Amino acid sequence: MSANSFGGRIQMHTFGESHGRAMGTLIDGFPAGVPIDINEVQHFLDRRKPGTSDLVSARKESDKLEIVSGIFEGKTLGTPICGLIYNQNARSEDYDQIKNQPRHGHAEKVWHDKFGHIDHRGGGRSSGRETLSRVIAGALCEQALKKVSPKTEVVGWVSQIGEWLCDDSMATKSSRIDIDKLSARFPYRDTAFIGQKLELAKANGESYGGVAEILVKNPPASLGQPVFRKLKADLASAAMSLGATLGVDFAEGFTSIEKPGTEFHSTQKISQYGGIQGGISTGQTIRFRVFFKPTSSILDVAKQGRHDPCIVPRAVPVLEAMTSFILFDHWLWSKTDQI
Amino acid sequence: MSANSFGGRIQMHTFGESHGRAMGTLIDGFPAGVPIDINEVQHFLDRRKPGTSDLVSARKESDKLEIVSGIFEGKTLGTPICGLIYNQNARSEDYDQIKNQPRHGHAEKVWHDKFGHIDHRGGGRSSGRETLSRVIAGALCEQALKKVSPKTEVVGWVSQIGEWLCDDSMATKSSRIDIDKLSARFPYRDTAFIGQKLELAKANGESYGGVAEILVKNPPASLGQPVFRKLKADLASAAMSLGATLGVDFAEGFTSIEKPGTEFHSTQKISQYGGIQGGISTGQTIRFRVFFKPTSSILDVAKQGRHDPCIVPRAVPVLEAMTSFILFDHWLWSKTDQI
Amino acid sequence: MSANSFGGRIQMHTFGESHGRAMGTLIDGFPAGVPIDINEVQHFLDRRKPGTSDLVSARKESDKLEIVSGIFEGKTLGTPICGLIYNQNARSEDYDQIKNQPRHGHAEKVWHDKFGHIDHRGGGRSSGRETLSRVIAGALCEQALKKVSPKTEVVGWVSQIGEWLCDDSMATKSSRIDIDKLSARFPYRDTAFIGQKLELAKANGESYGGVAEILVKNPPASLGQPVFRKLKADLASAAMSLGATLGVDFAEGFTSIEKPGTEFHSTQKISQYGGIQGGISTGQTIRFRVFFKPTSSILDVAKQGRHDPCIVPRAVPVLEAMTSFILFDHWLWSKTDQI
Amino acid sequence: MSANSFGGRIQMHTFGESHGRAMGTLIDGFPAGVPIDINEVQHFLDRRKPGTSDLVSARKESDKLEIVSGIFEGKTLGTPICGLIYNQNARSEDYDQIKNQPRHGHAEKVWHDKFGHIDHRGGGRSSGRETLSRVIAGALCEQALKKVSPKTEVVGWVSQIGEWLCDDSMATKSSRIDIDKLSARFPYRDTAFIGQKLELAKANGESYGGVAEILVKNPPASLGQPVFRKLKADLASAAMSLGATLGVDFAEGFTSIEKPGTEFHSTQKISQYGGIQGGISTGQTIRFRVFFKPTSSILDVAKQGRHDPCIVPRAVPVLEAMTSFILFDHWLWSKTDQI
Repeated sequence: MSANSFGGRIQMHTFGESHGRAMGTLIDGFPAGVPIDINEVQHFLDRRKPGTSDLVSARKESDKLEIVSGIFEGKTLGTPICGLIYNQNARSEDYDQIKNQPRHGHAEKVWHDKFGHIDHRGGGRSSGRETLSRVIAGALCEQALKKVSPKTEVVGWVSQIGEWLCDDSMATKSSRIDIDKLSARFPYRDTAFIGQKLELAKANGESYGGVAEILVKNPPASLGQPVFRKLKADLASAAMSLGATLGVDFAEGFTSIEKPGTEFHSTQKISQYGGIQGGISTGQTIRFRVFFKPTSSILDVAKQGRHDPCIVPRAVPVLEAMTSFILFDHWLWSKTDQI
Repeated sequence: MSANSFGGRIQMHTFGESHGRAMGTLIDGFPAGVPIDINEVQHFLDRRKPGTSDLVSARKESDKLEIVSGIFEGKTLGTPICGLIYNQNARSEDYDQIKNQPRHGHAEKVWHDKFGHIDHRGGGRSSGRETLSRVIAGALCEQALKKVSPKTEVVGWVSQIGEWLCDDSMATKSSRIDIDKLSARFPYRDTAFIGQKLELAKANGESYGGVAEILVKNPPASLGQPVFRKLKADLASAAMSLGATLGVDFAEGFTSIEKPGTEFHSTQKISQYGGIQGGISTGQTIRFRVFFKPTSSILDVAKQGRHDPCIVPRAVPVLEAMTSFILFDHWLWSKTDQI
Repeated sequence: MSANSFGGRIQMHTFGESHGRAMGTLIDGFPAGVPIDINEVQHFLDRRKPGTSDLVSARKESDKLEIVSGIFEGKTLGTPICGLIYNQNARSEDYDQIKNQPRHGHAEKVWHDKFGHIDHRGGGRSSGRETLSRVIAGALCEQALKKVSPKTEVVGWVSQIGEWLCDDSMATKSSRIDIDKLSARFPYRDTAFIGQKLELAKANGESYGGVAEILVKNPPASLGQPVFRKLKADLASAAMSLGATLGVDFAEGFTSIEKPGTEFHSTQKISQYGGIQGGISTGQTIRFRVFFKPTSSILDVAKQGRHDPCIVPRAVPVLEAMTSFILFDHWLWSKTDQI
Repeated sequence: MSANSFGGRIQMHTFGESHGRAMGTLIDGFPAGVPIDINEVQHFLDRRKPGTSDLVSARKESDKLEIVSGIFEGKTLGTPICGLIYNQNARSEDYDQIKNQPRHGHAEKVWHDKFGHIDHRGGGRSSGRETLSRVIAGALCEQALKKVSPKTEVVGWVSQIGEWLCDDSMATKSSRIDIDKLSARFPYRDTAFIGQKLELAKANGESYGGVAEILVKNPPASLGQPVFRKLKADLASAAMSLGATLGVDFAEGFTSIEKPGTEFHSTQKISQYGGIQGGISTGQTIRFRVFFKPTSSILDVAKQGRHDPCIVPRAVPVLEAMTSFILFDHWLWSKTDQI
């Protein structure tokens, strides 16, 4: 059991520090013969990239993916796939002051206590840049999933920023392309309003938390293991392994627990199970939400450094990638359920 | 990676079907030389036992633990510890009708689709009885944890039943013994009221969801791995690997995300981090909540069978056990952080 | 990664001390729907049982298997299978003298240094009785293998005892039933001679090492992973995880390395690859040998206690079981080689 | 459980195809704070490099190591260490003919059957170049081991080439530096003779098998797990996960099994246990041998391509590296034997 690994039948092993030489991911257990479109993987990576608008961190990184193993003549070999992204725009000097003065709300102090020796620059291994690795793995799995379950679609959006809630019916009707066009991936009638709020926050060293929501349309049925590797447990573990997450809920969520059982389980509808029963996918739409606290880079630190006033929009592709990874992992796992 | 295993440095492998011969757990990686008081483990098991009051399922089980390996002369050997509980009061005939008619909201159908051949009796492997295995493992780890971190205390309670909320200040001041004395482990001014509600529900085939809350006082610092095995990710995975869970949140929870960052991270208080930063314990109190949907055994099924109108009270010792397991697992893991 | 676990896609977790309450195995990852004949598993266990003749240890154990989970209505459920054997004839008092005086060549001292607290009785966890657990797992896998690859046959025998070599052509023509009829599972023209040698050894506190040889006829092709989980690496690891093993060799074995490559690789024959190339099974007969040192229970200790003058005959079913386990494990693994 | 991973508490995940973009290794679980001398790691890599003499393959590779994560300011961070070696001198066109005509004795055919799609160039993932990854991991572990057990020394040599045996007393007295100076790492009185034999073999398309022998002087005691992860099982698994290995033996080896027990276990000497009892290191010298078949690149193929007439000399540093890795892995593991 490696601390930097995720998965059951297929595993992603991630590596890299924010201002080190490179970020990367090593994927083991990927089957042979899957055609891979590297441009699509790159596009997935670009979707989480900083520096693309005023709403996100100004750090400029091309985040150019280099696959150094596991793919040959456009198809997977069944051997480990290593994807690398060399860090370029690492303004490490910005972080010199942090070396001796851990930032409030950041991981520097706990890291120092735990490991003794740390890379203080840009969050080191705790940086959000680590999620690049997950996107590489998830993007590859999404292409495999497309092969074995062509109708499955994983779409995420921001469903809350600070106190503002998205328009749910607008959200659930949108495709990934639709969402990507929205400011902050936030399906909101008054898009300009949210854009202004975030720009203002950026200028003032303010930050917002929020909620990312993920919908899986037409997932394969029978995914998930009955006890510890329930589909919901793996999704929750993936979500809570991201920085700044405070919680996760499934189906109709927390408030639905207030209903008495006779109402909750009324047979007219099934959305209350969120597409998962007994930990196993039913084939119906899976729905879950991930709660993020406001980023801790606020006030002067936020103004000096290059930070996002709200990291939820950039978390969306990461969660989509993790979801696709988990679905494909459990799909592989299900191949040996019966003989 | 086994589907029925949990843990990093120490692993619990659980087994058993509800109406099979026995439930059990196999724990590997437990260090040698830890004095074990079996009575205390049995007491922990008794805390989750059904049949103890009108508020819970009427199934009568002695749940008598038998340790068949790994402990000798009152101390652990460092070899695998196998704990068994033979099933006794298995009224399997109650479930004959289910064989061909899966219960709404239960896992029978997904199991059947996935595995082809299932044990339909009492939920089979999906039964809540599986949590016995987790309690055995957690209770053993709690004794080890007591040895290496004597001040650590894991206390859980029910903080919500249906629409009723507990008294938070009453809850946080209580010890485990205090909580166990309360009706439904629910710290509420008007205890009689809740007791009546649950009895009424039982009589009417009604059920309630709710929230279990866990507090870890004086946890060891430096527990948790920085990326995928963050302490919060492991706790969330453990929680979501229980049946009927809908979500989990940490620290001040979901509603706290509505606060702007300058307020959320205001230095006057630290409870907003819930004792975990960057995925690693700070040594401060850890707090998290687990959300349960109303049990799906309602109406006629509930009246006939032996079911709990609200399973949250019995989930409390299970979550305490899982928490102690995770803390000790990460404590062991931390022994090799530095050399 | 558990220390007491073996396997990739399917895992056996073994437990139990020689004079503890029970020996057992927990198998996770076994597919659902496999019909299991428990009598056959019991028969496999009986084949390694002590007390069956003058040639082996006099310890009397019924070694009666109890399956407590994972099998229902004669078929596997896909849930963990736990098999238990309660220890009966544990004459622990025989071992009281060892408590303070570790036996030469035995593991007591290293165990004590490593774990501090040990079960000194009958070798504790290091006892050969641990192999019962492997036989349970292997016997179950053999039945599954029979379903997916009916022609595969795993046959072992003793090919050397001390300085005496078996008759190879007699050995390779024999079925498992044939071998079991032979004294000491040793295909030797003069069976009486070997029986006398071993009886004499038993009387005199002498012991012999030897070689067990395993042939896999008609194995499935494409089993084994290309790098660390090569079929030969897993077989070697299994063999060397047995007590008293000194080495293992494949195909035509050690002496074949003396041939120059042009001779070794001459195309007239293929037995020089032992059915494995690049770590992967070719579908041709697999052949390997395992070398055992003479048991360390000699002289007075051997006369007093209940020990085998040569443990190789009883190691044969254990190696057969491990081989079947590995074959089925890799068969499951191969289901996700391509999609 | 990943197919390309090795280790228990620390894991090496290796990747790369011989003629792909890069070879590499990802090491997870390495403790923080270990000073690393990259030049020493590079030197270790250079010791297995081809193209250094007429006796080995003529493929010219600088094998220049680039560490892209996990080390900062000369010390390990406790985060995953990724080491890369970009392939340079990949004359892939040499292998075009193999694409449709698998080489006798090579893995192309089994790979094709198993994975459908393969990288035929230079053995692809099955190439001996994969061992570069193991040397990186082992070299790092050796530096960590030096910190915690300064007196431990791992020395290997070639003890047999074809039918020629080394001088054992010369071998056991030599340091690693001494061995590296010898032709073919073969401690033989008449060095010139062996050099000539190998040059002649190279010219004639002949190849030789042989034996590599490893001695661990002053190993830490108490390393190894009692059942499946016995020290000897891990060493055997590592050895047999190399290409071309036919077997492995420990201590005084195969021939020693011919001795009766009273002679084998005579107390005058202890070398018969090879420093391992019950699977656990005693602290005494560990000794084992690995048997290699003659390389299958013979005749015309050998003359055209760039191959070694005997690969054993280059296997020596690989085995040394794997041994150091295993020792350090088990050393870490032993930190949680007792609490």
